[in-house]
Amino acid sequence: MRSHETQIRVRYQETDNMGIVYYGNYFTWCEVARTEYLRSFGIAYTDLEKNGTYLLVASASCKYKSPARYDDVVTAKTWISEMKNTSLKFEYKFHVADRLVATGESTHVFTDRSFKPIRIPEGIKKLF
Amino acid sequence: MRSHETQIRVRYQETDNMGIVYYGNYFTWCEVARTEYLRSFGIAYTDLEKNGTYLLVASASCKYKSPARYDDVVTAKTWISEMKNTSLKFEYKFHVADRLVATGESTHVFTDRSFKPIRIPEGIKKLF
Amino acid sequence: MRSHETQIRVRYQETDNMGIVYYGNYFTWCEVARTEYLRSFGIAYTDLEKNGTYLLVASASCKYKSPARYDDVVTAKTWISEMKNTSLKFEYKFHVADRLVATGESTHVFTDRSFKPIRIPEGIKKLF
Amino acid sequence: MRSHETQIRVRYQETDNMGIVYYGNYFTWCEVARTEYLRSFGIAYTDLEKNGTYLLVASASCKYKSPARYDDVVTAKTWISEMKNTSLKFEYKFHVADRLVATGESTHVFTDRSFKPIRIPEGIKKLF
Repeated sequence: MRSHETQIRVRYQETDNMGIVYYGNYFTWCEVARTEYLRSFGIAYTDLEKNGTYLLVASASCKYKSPARYDDVVTAKTWISEMKNTSLKFEYKFHVADRLVATGESTHVFTDRSFKPIRIPEGIKKLF
Repeated sequence: MRSHETQIRVRYQETDNMGIVYYGNYFTWCEVARTEYLRSFGIAYTDLEKNGTYLLVASASCKYKSPARYDDVVTAKTWISEMKNTSLKFEYKFHVADRLVATGESTHVFTDRSFKPIRIPEGIKKLF
Repeated sequence: MRSHETQIRVRYQETDNMGIVYYGNYFTWCEVARTEYLRSFGIAYTDLEKNGTYLLVASASCKYKSPARYDDVVTAKTWISEMKNTSLKFEYKFHVADRLVATGESTHVFTDRSFKPIRIPEGIKKLF
Repeated sequence: MRSHETQIRVRYQETDNMGIVYYGNYFTWCEVARTEYLRSFGIAYTDLEKNGTYLLVASASCKYKSPARYDDVVTAKTWISEMKNTSLKFEYKFHVADRLVATGESTHVFTDRSFKPIRIPEGIKKLF
């Protein structure tokens, strides 16, 4: 499965009292990486939502390998590791230069506006 | 005008690389203080929104007097300092024990679902 | 192992474009729940840090069961499910009234100021 | 005074229950804009901190003109509008395409590690 890389500059707001990036903020970076991954296939997630299709998060996890700090440029590598009838699984690797900072994964269910699961639209399934 | 006090415990997530609370997070505390101020008058802001009335922020500002830190208990004092036909102005004072940490103010316009300004509902005007 | 419950009121800031709580914010709530869990044993995590002992996050995950929304009161139940020589595992259950909203877990390594792993201090080990 | 422009893509995390960007997040964007403004003069703010010089926020404000939404590309224009012995004032304008979204300003005091005000370093003063 094709992967995609996005660069994210660490914001001061994302750091914490330890002088490193707060662990919860990696999930925001997963979101940014996911959005840019989809865009690299020509899909603007915002258009999906406008058409009534949502990608609801079912689960998410990160493993922290070494700290990222303010002003670091983080490279987020993203790919889809699993596709089912109604769900997708994304994986993430975060590096600062050659140093592995964290890995992550998240599973998402396609739903309609009322958060009821739907089959992955054929047009999207074909793209991946 | 009556004032109201709310206690907020500083979260690790709210601190930054300087070891103090990130300046932008005071605006979240303004929101918490505002919500609890309204609740002290019997108004759940979430019910206003459910009925199609929104309090849109028009402007907001803070002055930072001394740092708040992780695990501090911040007392947020809130009151309404101005009421016009379609807008309200809130003021805030944040203390850690007797130490003044910050002051703030925010102006809000009553709007409908499409963010068009409306007159302050009479029922609400009377309360204050 | 003893568990502890903390109440968290959902902030407007924590919601997103879907009208529900953003998935990454549950990790902030895990932090709040963890801090209050430790406090229920008489441990202020901030004092640990002042003494040079850090609880670094090694991994974290959440499973999302149903949405939490603005102004909901979330009950976060926390307990320690595993204790090793240098690490602890916390588990979390988030409810809104009787409805299960999410579950989570996080593993933390005790370290010194330079983020080198250390054995769990005996005083702390005894408490749990 | 020279100005600088930075592009910021709106994150899902930055939106709220109203379907627009949460008002407090503009202050994070001010930070990003400020950092890139300084970088455009060859100053990495992170290096200032490493050398013991801090830019502490004394006050900050925003005026909200029209909503920014998920996935919008926001152009943040930044410049220094005032320079005193120990402090700087930044101003900001945020646009989505030609539409003005918000304006802001923030005043910052140069301090040492213990947050005591210091004179603006000559090298920095000359640059602006």
